[in-house]
Amino acid sequence: MAKNEEVKDGIIFSSGEKNDAFAQYFVGQSYMNSLVADPEVNVGVGNVTFEPGCRNNWHIHHDGYQILLVTGGEGWYQEDGKQAQFLQTGDVIVTHDGIKHWHGATKDSWFEHIAITAGTPEWLEPVSDEIYD
Amino acid sequence: MAKNEEVKDGIIFSSGEKNDAFAQYFVGQSYMNSLVADPEVNVGVGNVTFEPGCRNNWHIHHDGYQILLVTGGEGWYQEDGKQAQFLQTGDVIVTHDGIKHWHGATKDSWFEHIAITAGTPEWLEPVSDEIYD
Repeated sequence: MAKNEEVKDGIIFSSGEKNDAFAQYFVGQSYMNSLVADPEVNVGVGNVTFEPGCRNNWHIHHDGYQILLVTGGEGWYQEDGKQAQFLQTGDVIVTHDGIKHWHGATKDSWFEHIAITAGTPEWLEPVSDEIYD
Repeated sequence: MAKNEEVKDGIIFSSGEKNDAFAQYFVGQSYMNSLVADPEVNVGVGNVTFEPGCRNNWHIHHDGYQILLVTGGEGWYQEDGKQAQFLQTGDVIVTHDGIKHWHGATKDSWFEHIAITAGTPEWLEPVSDEIYD
């Protein structure tokens, strides 16, 4: 599991602390290293690390967007009404304003992405095991 | 020079093509891999790679900002009137609206960063050897 150990500790940016602030919006354990939180810029940038099986709830970015830069491991991204996309290191995802979506690790791999986020998130229901499986 | 070979080819995102579009605003050779260029989001995201000694001209982001996420190698960042800062993997820089600055590789190392950029750039004079040295 050398691959997983590497992702767990952070590939370029360390994985940071347990993501307690958003834990209520995740299934499983995630970690957050906030890289940019500056009132003079309209995006926040964070390194988010998901343990195997961990994913965030369905959510929407209102009056904004989200860009994911995948930096390690293997995961999933899904927009409501579409097929889930398999993600690996080097993949880039852009989620437009108002699009309901979720992202997270695969069942057997840690997963890490840099998230560049603008706007206000609306957190919705968890991703059911039925959808995730 | 294993470190340099790795950075040259791209650590996570490939280094992309020679950065001909902006070559007039650089001293030395740089490479650009555009990751996000989407009319629906207010930032562009690109992976920029500098050969040793390469740096961009002094420039300003008007009505915007720039975030640099250093992903490999060793470089410099300087704001006008301040000391140059040494940069290495894992460093993060935020340049605010209207701030004159430059960035680039050290003399003996390749350098790579992800640039998240909003607003309109104004390109100014090259960084003189006197400043760079």
